[in-house]
Amino acid sequence: MAKQERVILVTNDDGITAPGIRALIEAVKPLGKVVVVAPDSPQSGKGHAITIGVPLRLNQVDIFEGIEAWQCSGTPVDCVKLARDKILHGKPDICVSGINHGANHSINVIYSGTMSAAMEAAIEGIPSVGFSFLEYSYDADFSLPKKVAHEVTKRMLASDLPAGTLFNVNIPIVSEKDYKGLKISRQADAKWVEEFDERRDPHGKKYYWLTGEFKNRDNGQDTDVWALENNYASLVPVQFDLTNYSLKKKLEEDWKDL
Amino acid sequence: MAKQERVILVTNDDGITAPGIRALIEAVKPLGKVVVVAPDSPQSGKGHAITIGVPLRLNQVDIFEGIEAWQCSGTPVDCVKLARDKILHGKPDICVSGINHGANHSINVIYSGTMSAAMEAAIEGIPSVGFSFLEYSYDADFSLPKKVAHEVTKRMLASDLPAGTLFNVNIPIVSEKDYKGLKISRQADAKWVEEFDERRDPHGKKYYWLTGEFKNRDNGQDTDVWALENNYASLVPVQFDLTNYSLKKKLEEDWKDL
Repeated sequence: MAKQERVILVTNDDGITAPGIRALIEAVKPLGKVVVVAPDSPQSGKGHAITIGVPLRLNQVDIFEGIEAWQCSGTPVDCVKLARDKILHGKPDICVSGINHGANHSINVIYSGTMSAAMEAAIEGIPSVGFSFLEYSYDADFSLPKKVAHEVTKRMLASDLPAGTLFNVNIPIVSEKDYKGLKISRQADAKWVEEFDERRDPHGKKYYWLTGEFKNRDNGQDTDVWALENNYASLVPVQFDLTNYSLKKKLEEDWKDL
Repeated sequence: MAKQERVILVTNDDGITAPGIRALIEAVKPLGKVVVVAPDSPQSGKGHAITIGVPLRLNQVDIFEGIEAWQCSGTPVDCVKLARDKILHGKPDICVSGINHGANHSINVIYSGTMSAAMEAAIEGIPSVGFSFLEYSYDADFSLPKKVAHEVTKRMLASDLPAGTLFNVNIPIVSEKDYKGLKISRQADAKWVEEFDERRDPHGKKYYWLTGEFKNRDNGQDTDVWALENNYASLVPVQFDLTNYSLKKKLEEDWKDL
């Protein structure tokens, strides 16, 4: 009996026309039946936003040869929810998100639409992974990220991973010759130091643009930031139980009377 | 020498005109100098979204007697970032978010704008807490939630909490007589089972409304959902290091060769 083909849900946050999602489709196409459900416009920085105040649109598009693809008017998380309920009518074998144009290491996991889409699938019990390439440019050479995405997805499909498994994979800007491989990492303690650029509109009223500088305050050599700086791709296993258990224990003693 | 007054940043995700934020202001006003920076429109379900594609507006409003208040065109997370950079020009002593109209227990912490605002402050090292009342109605009686918010904020200001401390507090719908107190809890393993309501617009084209049913799949008596069902308010200490350390350890052995 022929083995049933795996179903691979592909999504992203840069929008369905971004080169990164095309690279990801090419990377995982040899591994199963690919179905694409992705936002119809860029959704970077949308975090785990869902659309509740307005209805959503979903339209099939023919832009990837031989691949079923849908564009959605909502956020990356909306795409995953709609894919499951209205397109796949069930769970795919894996959900892959990206390849994001730009880093999603360290604290960026929290702001990233790419990772939130993957997390939404993981909450559903679908093994999931987000891929991000440190190069922002739309003309970037995706050869190495494609290779990494293929290898990680293949390994995930072949592994018996716990329900809710979610990986955050980032790929450095490095030649294939200098690339050192994949490093299992922890999320670096880093953050954005923001300043808003204050301007005035033609009517004299102030408005603000978000700008920021990334600051790593973590010296560990086991972090994703360290791995990327040392020519590794980083893989951080991510959880969505956000309970701080050590603080919980402390509070159970100190805050007894409240 | 007089003790310097504490600065309390108040925000929410239901918007600056929601009754819940007024209740929160009243609850914490006796504890320090309150500054309000909140969205100018409802931002429920916005998760940790930030605004990067359009500039932001920030306008001072006079709707809370004797309280400095600003409304912002962005998300809850934008409000916290702008408050720090452009209004407070530094960190407040605490950030309180809410009181949300509706529950943010269990997995909702990930979708909640209320909690994301508080998390953004926590990432900055500001002790932070989100308050949510299980009653959705705008006519809700906020007496008990106000009391809980006052007590928790007071205790937080008096405690020497680790940097990055973040609490998710939910308040049940219960008479003060039957209220049993605050229970330190963990995030319940629960999720939304979604179905999209499919409709057709006047032009015959399909559109979808997100609807969902909440399912708790966690039988633990130490969860936030259990606490709330048993007339306690729940307090979950929340972390933003999302590394799954136990899975990391396993992968370091099993995925050595990748």
